[in-house]
Parts: sequence; C-alpha cells; structure tokens
Amino acid sequence: MELIIGFVYIAIALTLLSTSNAAEPAQIRLLRPRFGSGGRRVEGLDCLSWRLAVETNNLRSWKVVPQSCEDYVGNYMLGRQYRRDIEVVAEAAVEYAKSIQVAGDGKDLWVFDIDETSLSNLPYYARSDVQFGAIEYNETGFNQWVAEGTAPAIPAILRLYKTVLSLGFKTAFISGTLDAYTDIKILNLNQAGYYNWEKLILKGENDHGSSVDYKSQRRTELVNEGYRIVGNIGDQWSDLIGTNVGNRTFKVPDPMYYIG
Amino acid sequence: MELIIGFVYIAIALTLLSTSNAAEPAQIRLLRPRFGSGGRRVEGLDCLSWRLAVETNNLRSWKVVPQSCEDYVGNYMLGRQYRRDIEVVAEAAVEYAKSIQVAGDGKDLWVFDIDETSLSNLPYYARSDVQFGAIEYNETGFNQWVAEGTAPAIPAILRLYKTVLSLGFKTAFISGTLDAYTDIKILNLNQAGYYNWEKLILKGENDHGSSVDYKSQRRTELVNEGYRIVGNIGDQWSDLIGTNVGNRTFKVPDPMYYIG
Repeated sequence: MELIIGFVYIAIALTLLSTSNAAEPAQIRLLRPRFGSGGRRVEGLDCLSWRLAVETNNLRSWKVVPQSCEDYVGNYMLGRQYRRDIEVVAEAAVEYAKSIQVAGDGKDLWVFDIDETSLSNLPYYARSDVQFGAIEYNETGFNQWVAEGTAPAIPAILRLYKTVLSLGFKTAFISGTLDAYTDIKILNLNQAGYYNWEKLILKGENDHGSSVDYKSQRRTELVNEGYRIVGNIGDQWSDLIGTNVGNRTFKVPDPMYYIG
Repeated sequence: MELIIGFVYIAIALTLLSTSNAAEPAQIRLLRPRFGSGGRRVEGLDCLSWRLAVETNNLRSWKVVPQSCEDYVGNYMLGRQYRRDIEVVAEAAVEYAKSIQVAGDGKDLWVFDIDETSLSNLPYYARSDVQFGAIEYNETGFNQWVAEGTAPAIPAILRLYKTVLSLGFKTAFISGTLDAYTDIKILNLNQAGYYNWEKLILKGENDHGSSVDYKSQRRTELVNEGYRIVGNIGDQWSDLIGTNVGNRTFKVPDPMYYIG
C-alpha cells in the first residue's frame, strides 16, 4: 500500500515537472510516503494542527516550516488533500460568483493573487534545496525560478478564473512579484492558460512596507477607479485583510511560506 | 484497533457527561468510530476539506453540518484532533501574550468569547437530537441546555485565561447569550474555573443585527472606556472581524455551527 502511494506521488511529481519543463528532475525532494497527510501525529508536534493554525492566521510571521513537519507538508502538497482543499475553495467561490448579479458596466472585479493561488511554485518548492519551505527562503534561488516562467496553473483556480470571466466579471492580478518580471509573468500566465485580465499589478521599486499595505493600496486605487471588488482570492492572509478587501474573500491553502 | 478507539471515544464522552452533570447520558450520539478524523474521504465530499473551508471562513452562512460529514465531525469533536487543534491555538496565544509588555494601568485587555471557546457545549451537541450540528439549530433545546449551566471548560482555553490573568491582563467575556441568562452564566463560568473577569457582556434585548455588529459595538465601547484590546479569541469569525478586533485574533476550531 505504501509502495502504491509512493508511486502515485512520484507520478504526480513527474507530472508537475513535465508540466513546468524544469531542467533538473533529479532535484525533486524525495519523501517517505506516509498515510494521512490529512492527519498523523509527528513526534512533538501535530502537523495537521500546525497547518490549521497557519491557515486560520493563528500562527503569523513564521520563517520556515517546522523541521518535524517537512515530510508532512511535502506529502500534503504532492498528495490528494491539497488538491481537494483547493477544489472546495474554488467551488465555494464559483457558487458565490454565480449568486452575484453582474452589473454589466465592466466594473465588477475579481482580484486574484498569483503565486500559490493562480500559479503553483510547487516544482520549485519540491526541490531538495527548498524542502517545501523547511529551508529558509532563498531570494536568489526563487527569482531564478520565477525567471524561468514555467510555473503551472493551479487547475481549480484556473477553472474559477475562466468561470468568473464567463459570468461577466473583470479580473485583476495583484502580486508581490517585482515588475521587473512583467514580461516573463505575462508569458507564464498565458502559457498556464490565463488570458483577458483587466489589470496585472506587480510590485514597483518604490513599494516598500508590508504586503498588507501594498495590496491594500493597490486595491484602493482600483476602487477609486470605480471598480467594485466582488471577490478576492489568495493564499496569504495579507492578500485578504487590510482595506477594500472585497465583498467576499477566499483563502487558498499554503503551508509552505508566510508573507505578512 | 477500531474497538480500542471506540472505547476511547466512549470514555471521553462519559467524561464529558460526568463533567457536565447531564441528566441523560443515554442521549449521547453513537458514532461509528473511524480512522483519520483528521482526514478520510467521505462519499461525495472530503470532510477535512469542508472543515478547513469552514475554519478559514471560505464557507459562510451554512445552516447545518452536511449529512455526509456528521460522523466525521462527531469523531473529530470527541477525538484527539480537536483537542490538539485547540492546544496549538492556545499555545500560540500564550506565546503572543508573553511577548507583550503589560502597561500596568489595568487597561490591557484580552477578549474571550464564551461558547465553544471558553465553555464547551459538546455534551449538548453530542446528543442524538443534535448530531454535532447536522440537525438544524433548535433554539428551545439549546436554551434549555444553557439554563442547566453545566457546560464544561475547554481546558486549553482555561489555561490561557489563567495565564493572561497571571501576566497582568484584564479579561472580558463577550457572548451572544442573552443577558436573561446572566446569573446562570456566571455560575457556569465559576464552576468551570473562570474567575476574576473585568467585564461580562451578554446580549441585551435591544441587540438586534448581526453578531459581527453586536460584538464590534461592544468592543468599541471597551476601547472608548480606555481599554486596549491586546488579544481576542473566539470560535466564530464574527468574533474576530469588524471593528476594534484587537492587536491579534485567535480562531478556535468549531465545525458544528456558523454564526455570522
């Protein structure tokens, strides 16, 4: 049974890698497959409780995934639970979107975060020198990965994106990625299947301060332009708190890193 | 193994009942014990994904626990995962509380919700006519249970309560319970081990509107009295959003009901 699950994970990992065209498949982090990426007590720390505390914003400003939860987070991210968790978020968002009467003036807007929301950096985070966030953030390494422009879409969120477009909403991406990467980000979004956005907002050189402040400012500018933020979806609470967060917010799971 | 887990659950259930002095132990809801109250796919719906969506406020205004998740929620609430989840919240709150320099003017305040935060209604929710929230809310039945005044403390939160008092914080309870129950609520809190609060705020007859509005108003009154809300803990997002939510909020798990 463990062997079968192991093969499934390896197959998923290879699929991810082939999707992302990464050059070095040997870099994938090897995991000891475990039952219950949903649950399972790990020595000294219940990693499901830790993940729940992260997802509910009870734990903040953490720097790395606890070492004792690295295998747990890896199995979760490569396994079925992460995909199911995202599907349930996307289903809730679709249901909400369908309940909204779109005004037809082109001002009903849905805000999407990019990383770990619309696009997945899992091929990078699964690398042995990243360990699903159990090793401290390496800006150089991450930027090299961003520059490749090969992050795959998160399928359930791509479906949500296409659904809200088809319902008549406009879409805006607001991302903490530096605008020096604008061209590659557009290419990456297109290759992953994202098109027809109204706004693509990346971080300028003068955007200092917290992510909460940066994203609040950008959303406020959109509201000042007359847009109504009907929905807002992101993997970080800093996407979803602050000012003008939107009528409904949706938190996508991400136990790999924290941005405040 | 299932049998052993079954006995553990029954033992927990009996402990809960004996703690609460409930008159009718035969009313306890019988569960088919299951592995993985953390995880486990249930036909048509992944109940862990559902629970995560509830805890992250992605699903709102839901009336009852989905029928297919009743057993799951029951096993979760009576099992180890719920207790561990709460312990991790309480540990995070204690760590935060200890990091705060208390001013010593008696104005540093910690706000506690009561139901499913400080006190547990699990002996009521475990009844066969309540089914852990899978049967629609019965106001009469619930009020009869409240009038008994026998809700047990949630141990990890009681420890947090005592810790913040010992650190020099003042405490305030803000609850949606009607103030007609003031006497019995005080008795219940005392019997469960809660003492020395600065404020006990229950809902008045004229408090209409949403729970978010009611709790925001009460917190704003406290702030206008000069209190600084340093911490705020509750099982409902309506305890933790709105105005003057406090410097840090802590979400206690509750997959049994939603109050908006």
